[in-house]
Amino acid sequence: MSFAPILEADVKNWTETRDVLIVGFGGAGACAAIEAADNGASVTIFEAASESGGSTKLSSAELYLGGGTKVQKAVGYDDSADDVYGYLMDSNGPQADPEKVRAYADGGADHLDWLMALGVPFKMSEYPERAMMALTDDCLLYTGSEKAWPYVDKYKPAPRGHNLYVEGDNGGPLLVKILTEAVEQRDVHVHLEARALRLIVDQFGPEQRIVGLVVREDMEERCYRATRGVVLCAGGFVMNQEMMQDYAPELAKAGTVPIGNPNDTGGGIQMGLSVGARAINMHEGFLSVPFYPPATLTHGIFVNGQGQRFINEDAYHGRIGCYLVKQAFPVYLVLNVDDYADYETASWLAAPVKGTGETIDELAEELDLPTGSLQETVSRYNEAAEAGSDSRFHKSDVWLKPLTGPFVALDCTPGAGAFLPHFTLGGLDTTVDGVVLNAEGSSINGLYAAGRTACGVPRRGDGYASGSSVGDATFSGRRAGRHIATAQ
Amino acid sequence: MSFAPILEADVKNWTETRDVLIVGFGGAGACAAIEAADNGASVTIFEAASESGGSTKLSSAELYLGGGTKVQKAVGYDDSADDVYGYLMDSNGPQADPEKVRAYADGGADHLDWLMALGVPFKMSEYPERAMMALTDDCLLYTGSEKAWPYVDKYKPAPRGHNLYVEGDNGGPLLVKILTEAVEQRDVHVHLEARALRLIVDQFGPEQRIVGLVVREDMEERCYRATRGVVLCAGGFVMNQEMMQDYAPELAKAGTVPIGNPNDTGGGIQMGLSVGARAINMHEGFLSVPFYPPATLTHGIFVNGQGQRFINEDAYHGRIGCYLVKQAFPVYLVLNVDDYADYETASWLAAPVKGTGETIDELAEELDLPTGSLQETVSRYNEAAEAGSDSRFHKSDVWLKPLTGPFVALDCTPGAGAFLPHFTLGGLDTTVDGVVLNAEGSSINGLYAAGRTACGVPRRGDGYASGSSVGDATFSGRRAGRHIATAQ
Repeated sequence: MSFAPILEADVKNWTETRDVLIVGFGGAGACAAIEAADNGASVTIFEAASESGGSTKLSSAELYLGGGTKVQKAVGYDDSADDVYGYLMDSNGPQADPEKVRAYADGGADHLDWLMALGVPFKMSEYPERAMMALTDDCLLYTGSEKAWPYVDKYKPAPRGHNLYVEGDNGGPLLVKILTEAVEQRDVHVHLEARALRLIVDQFGPEQRIVGLVVREDMEERCYRATRGVVLCAGGFVMNQEMMQDYAPELAKAGTVPIGNPNDTGGGIQMGLSVGARAINMHEGFLSVPFYPPATLTHGIFVNGQGQRFINEDAYHGRIGCYLVKQAFPVYLVLNVDDYADYETASWLAAPVKGTGETIDELAEELDLPTGSLQETVSRYNEAAEAGSDSRFHKSDVWLKPLTGPFVALDCTPGAGAFLPHFTLGGLDTTVDGVVLNAEGSSINGLYAAGRTACGVPRRGDGYASGSSVGDATFSGRRAGRHIATAQ
Repeated sequence: MSFAPILEADVKNWTETRDVLIVGFGGAGACAAIEAADNGASVTIFEAASESGGSTKLSSAELYLGGGTKVQKAVGYDDSADDVYGYLMDSNGPQADPEKVRAYADGGADHLDWLMALGVPFKMSEYPERAMMALTDDCLLYTGSEKAWPYVDKYKPAPRGHNLYVEGDNGGPLLVKILTEAVEQRDVHVHLEARALRLIVDQFGPEQRIVGLVVREDMEERCYRATRGVVLCAGGFVMNQEMMQDYAPELAKAGTVPIGNPNDTGGGIQMGLSVGARAINMHEGFLSVPFYPPATLTHGIFVNGQGQRFINEDAYHGRIGCYLVKQAFPVYLVLNVDDYADYETASWLAAPVKGTGETIDELAEELDLPTGSLQETVSRYNEAAEAGSDSRFHKSDVWLKPLTGPFVALDCTPGAGAFLPHFTLGGLDTTVDGVVLNAEGSSINGLYAAGRTACGVPRRGDGYASGSSVGDATFSGRRAGRHIATAQ
C-alpha cells in the first residue's frame, strides 16, 4: 500500500471542501475537531472503523493531569505545575520535549475543566490502592512512579491519574461517548468506515502545502479539499508488523501483546513521512508487567537469571517491565504465599507459577538460578525489610515486608506465559501546537498531527505513567485543533 | 542550513556531467569510486575536507572479516561464513538485517583479497593479546565477544579483526593512502574542499529521480549532473548536536566523547531525508568503556551502585560500555593492584582511582556502595574463581582469578572522568546494494548510500565488534559502486 501524496492538479473531482480535515476519530481526533469547530472552522473527520473511539475507547481513559486540578484540590492535594514538569522531564529522560512538557504541566488543571465542561464526570474522590486503574467510580490515583525512588525525593508526589466517574474499568467508552456527542453538536461532519489513503498537495517539493485528502469510502476513492489543512490523529503503529520491524524491533521482540485498536497500523505516520515529515523516538515504547493489583504482590521481589534484584518493586508496572526485559532471563517474582492472596482472580499478569516452597531452599531448588543466589538476595532483602530501609534499591518502607514463607515464584520471563502488553511512543515530530516538522525542523504547511501519530509528552517506557496517552492525546488534539483553525 | 533538493529545470549552468557522483572520500566513498570506475563509470568524488580519509583515516582501520580469509587460513583458523553469520545476526539482535549480514559473512574472504590486490598489506600472523587493536604489525585479533558468553557456546569463535601490516596504531592512514592511490589511478575526479549541499532531482514527488548535486567549492555553488546517480558516503551524525538530540538523545547523554571526523554532521543523511528516504535505527550507537589493554584489567569485576556485578568482564569493551551506562551509578572496576599493573601508561580509559585498600572492607569504606554489598559480591566472585566456573555471569575461566588484595577501584561512572567514546549506528535504510529506500520501502531512483550514512551491518552497541565500521564501510561502498555503475 502506497501513501505517496498526489497533486491537487491531478484531482478530477472534489467531493467537498472544508476548512479542516481530520484523520481518525479517537481521543485526539475528537478533541481536535471540537476545538477547531469552536474556533470557527468547518471540520470533517474520517474514521476507518465503523464507530468513533480508536484506542481511547479501548483504554481505561485515565487522564494524567496535575498542577492543581479541581479534583486534586477537592481531595486535598497541593500539586504544582513545577512538580508535574520536573517529574515528567525527569521520567521522560533525555528525549523529553521541554516545550511540550511545560505546556502540558501548566495546562493540566485547565484541561480537566474543559473536559468537565463538556460533561465528562469526575468524582471528587481518591482511589487509595496501588492499582493500574480505579475499579470503583473514584477519581484520583497514583499511576506513575511519583512515590517511588528515584522521583519521590526530587518532586513532591501527588496522584495525577484521573479516572472517570463510572463504576469499573469503563472510562474509555464513557469518555468517547461524551466526546462523540460534543463533536456531533458542532459543525463537524463525521465519516465512518472512511479510510484516509493519501495527502493531496498543491505541489511536490519543499514549497508544498497540504490541501486535501484522498479517502476510500462507499467503495470508491474520493478527494476532499481542506482550506486550512489536515490533522493526522490516526494512532500509532503497534499493529503494523512491518513498521515494528523497521522502527521498533526491540520493542516488538520484548513485548508479547500489542495494545491498541486494529487500525493502529501507522497510516498517519506513513502519510506524514511521505511528504517529508520527521519521525522521532520510533524505537521507544511502553512495555508493562502488570502485576498489580493485587497490590500485595508489591511486597515481593523481582529477581533475574543471576538471582539478583534489579529494581524497587514499588515502581510503576511499566517502569518495571522495561527493566525486566533487559535482564538476563529468567525473571521471577518471589512472594510470600500470603501476599499471593487473590492473585489468580485479581491480576492481569497471568504469569505461571514456576515454583513453591516452605523454605527458600525448597523454592530455590525449583527455580533455575545460580546456587545460593536466591537465598542471598532474600536474606539481604529481609534485612532491609526488618531495618525498614532498602539501601540498595530504595523501595519505600511502605512495601518492605520480610519474605518469610511459605513462598511462591511467578515466572515473568517474556514468552513464558505472562501478559506483557506494549505500545509505541514514537511518531511525527511536531511543534507544541501540532504543526508537523520536516527533517530540517521546518513546518510542513497545512499538516498537523496529534495523539500517538505524533511524538508527544510520553517518550520513555521506563518513565511512563498510566493516563499519559489519553491525557496527551486529548491535550495535543485540542492544541492542534485550535492552531489549525486560527493560524494566520 | 537547508538540504532541500532543487529541480533540474532550475539549474542554469551545469559544471560537468559524470556517470556517478560520490559525496565523501572516506573508506566508503573511496571503495564506491574504485568499483564504479572498474565497472566502466566515470566518477567524481566531492570531499568537504582538504584531504581524503574521513573517519576511516582517524581509525585503526581494522577490518572485521571472516569466513576463512587468507590470513585466517594462514594462521590456522577454520572460520566459516555460517559462524560469522550466526554471530553477527545474534549480536546485532532484533534489528539485524539478514540480507546484509549474509552478504557480509559470505563475502568476507573475497573482500580481504580485493583489498590485498589493491596493495593493502596484511601480515600472515596473529596478535594474541586481548586488545582493542594490534599495536604491533601483526594482523588477526579477536575484536568482539566471540570467545565470551553468550556467543562462545553458539558460534565457533575465530579472530576476525584484520589489522594492517604496519607498526603501531597506524592502519587508518595507510589504508587511506592506498585507497586514495587506487582512486587516482582510475577515471575518478577528486574535488577536495568541496561540500555537497543539495541533491538535484528531475522532478519533485514520488516519481523523482536523483540527477545531480549542488556543491560549494572555490567559494561558489556549482551544479554537477549525474547520469547514473549519487552515492552518499558522508559519514554519520555524531558531530551534529542538534541531530543527536533529535534522534539519539540517550546516546548523546551517555557518551562523553563523540568519535568521528568533524564532518560527521549528518549531511548525507539529511540530503537523503530531504528526498523522502527512510532513516532507521537512529537511536543506536557504539559506546565503549575502553579498559583494556592492559588485558590484566579483565581479571577485575565491574560493580554498579547496588554493589552488583552486571556482566562477564571478558566481553568486548563496547558491550560492557552499553551495559555500564544502563546501571544505577556509580560504576566501579574493582581490581587487584597487581592487575592494575601498567594501567596508567597502557590504558585509554583514564578512569580516576576512587579507592584503594589492603582489604575489601577498607576498599568498601572508600566507595559509595550499600553496606556489605561489595564484600558479598567479591566473595561470590572469588568462590567462582576458585571453582573455575562463573555460574552467574559466565566469564571464561581464562579470566577468573580471585580478588585477594591489595585492591584498587577505578571510577567508570559517566561524567567522573573516564573516556567513554561513542558514535552512531543509524542511518538511511538501503538495500544490500546500497539503493536508498523511501518510507514505504521502495527504491529512490538514482540514490545510493554506504558507510555510516547508511544503516549497515553493525546495528547495536552491545553487539558491536571493532573493525565492523571500516569493514562495513568498505564492503558497502564497493557494493554501491558496483550496482550504480551496472544497474539497468
